[in-house]
Amino acid sequence: MTMSLPLAPELQVQTWFNTDRPLFLAGLRDRVVVLVAFQVLCPRSVSHGVPQALRLFETFAPDEVAVIGLHTTFEHHDAVNQSMLKAFIQEYRLKFPIGLDQPNSSSPIPHTMERYKMRGTPSLVLIDRRGLIRKHAFGPVDDLRIGAEIGALTQESPAVARSSAA
Amino acid sequence: MTMSLPLAPELQVQTWFNTDRPLFLAGLRDRVVVLVAFQVLCPRSVSHGVPQALRLFETFAPDEVAVIGLHTTFEHHDAVNQSMLKAFIQEYRLKFPIGLDQPNSSSPIPHTMERYKMRGTPSLVLIDRRGLIRKHAFGPVDDLRIGAEIGALTQESPAVARSSAA
Amino acid sequence: MTMSLPLAPELQVQTWFNTDRPLFLAGLRDRVVVLVAFQVLCPRSVSHGVPQALRLFETFAPDEVAVIGLHTTFEHHDAVNQSMLKAFIQEYRLKFPIGLDQPNSSSPIPHTMERYKMRGTPSLVLIDRRGLIRKHAFGPVDDLRIGAEIGALTQESPAVARSSAA
Amino acid sequence: MTMSLPLAPELQVQTWFNTDRPLFLAGLRDRVVVLVAFQVLCPRSVSHGVPQALRLFETFAPDEVAVIGLHTTFEHHDAVNQSMLKAFIQEYRLKFPIGLDQPNSSSPIPHTMERYKMRGTPSLVLIDRRGLIRKHAFGPVDDLRIGAEIGALTQESPAVARSSAA
Repeated sequence: MTMSLPLAPELQVQTWFNTDRPLFLAGLRDRVVVLVAFQVLCPRSVSHGVPQALRLFETFAPDEVAVIGLHTTFEHHDAVNQSMLKAFIQEYRLKFPIGLDQPNSSSPIPHTMERYKMRGTPSLVLIDRRGLIRKHAFGPVDDLRIGAEIGALTQESPAVARSSAA
Repeated sequence: MTMSLPLAPELQVQTWFNTDRPLFLAGLRDRVVVLVAFQVLCPRSVSHGVPQALRLFETFAPDEVAVIGLHTTFEHHDAVNQSMLKAFIQEYRLKFPIGLDQPNSSSPIPHTMERYKMRGTPSLVLIDRRGLIRKHAFGPVDDLRIGAEIGALTQESPAVARSSAA
Repeated sequence: MTMSLPLAPELQVQTWFNTDRPLFLAGLRDRVVVLVAFQVLCPRSVSHGVPQALRLFETFAPDEVAVIGLHTTFEHHDAVNQSMLKAFIQEYRLKFPIGLDQPNSSSPIPHTMERYKMRGTPSLVLIDRRGLIRKHAFGPVDDLRIGAEIGALTQESPAVARSSAA
Repeated sequence: MTMSLPLAPELQVQTWFNTDRPLFLAGLRDRVVVLVAFQVLCPRSVSHGVPQALRLFETFAPDEVAVIGLHTTFEHHDAVNQSMLKAFIQEYRLKFPIGLDQPNSSSPIPHTMERYKMRGTPSLVLIDRRGLIRKHAFGPVDDLRIGAEIGALTQESPAVARSSAA
């Protein structure tokens, strides 16, 4: 754990679901954050990423670990829309906060996907209590391994963490 | 097997994918037809119905058993559109013919769903070589059982079948 | 379907479970028989072969399709015994008839395995109403495909079958 | 984490597999220990407990987390024997240390099962770096949750742990 760990870029979201107010990583310091990027027409997002996000949300205490969904895509822009995401969230009974990535008028890659340099969906980003990126994975991730990594991050003291990051 | 078996209503489809020309049950007599109704935002369609349709298509010879997908829904009409279905078919690499059910201007229930009185998705309809409905199921169906039913139907002679239905 | 189909060799069993009397294929003519060979220490037998046998037993009417388990092995003879098979059947709640293959004093390969020239476990043998072998598979078999094959065999008339085999 | 956590009883094993020398918890202080109790004729042991033990062994560094299998049973004593366990370990390609629980001449419950008051198999016991029991579960356990718990335990300093336990 050194200064070289990258600070997680802030989320840039067009519309939020399952939350009264927009979420910002800056407001989630002291919590571990799991950012799960998915797309409703992406087979591995639907078979692995979304169900795992649901299990993560059900397993960890929300004041310890914040699970955040991010719907994002660099393709199928004429197919994907806000109504579809809303219906998907309803049908899959997702209760965790989900943001629709902010489209980019000058690129097919929306803003948050661009900032995180995601390769596609599903992607999973682990952010520690200080806001540093500790894992950035593209494709399915084992429950056992991600559980272990989150479990370890929850044991880091934010205070200690801050001083070691200073 | 008696006269009381219902004749399968004709399909009424807005747009076809994976076929050069529109499909009609009338043109599929002498083949067993498996009609798989699904919806891209329906969890059990995506986890069970569509993968089973794919396995059916890969298991049976197409001149013996015609597997036909039908995208249909009585809700989420502002979310579902032709571009979305096209992207879904591409992402899930579906190769069997799929029709988008014809919307009904006077009802949320599209025409083919209405004719078959489907309760929702996924639904599976088995149609014999004579065009008679032999099974109409709502919800997941076992591979073993549906395999056995299709296997049995393929053994029926269309000629004998026609005379026994006459 | 020709004369060249091999007649299924008779079973040679040391002990039977789940049946009052020994079973012989000769006594099962007019039924389709599914013979499932397994071994309690064989991973694919336990994860695939035995659960599929259970599904087969639950799916088909016993007077149409007889599902018979055969415990057989060419190795681990000091590990495998009758008490173990009895406990396995109890623990896995298997209700279909299961025979323990007759050991061969002059070979590690027991008698029924030898007669059928099985390559190991799990193996599945499909026998038609006339007693002819219609499928002989080593390793896991798809539910959909085996369902279709059994479904087709159930449609064969024993009478017609007998004359075509005569 | 208080004085009230129970110290894990020492293992009492008849025969060890996959290790050159007998294992004792006393020799594993400073490591997290996962003790997985299973039985080869127990369906949930074979479908869940053993595969999870294998995943645990493959996921964690052995000098951080010691995964130990314990074969134990309070029934089927005439069916279960050392040759069977040896063949099972070979067939399932298990590489982690596995002990056969020491039979008890005056009870059907073997010694280690008795000391841990296990209710049956599969059972999973998590032991921290100080040798204290932190989890004792009967039946299947989620990968995500057990991963998180082990991940958290690995972050505990043995030194700090010792003092807090002193």
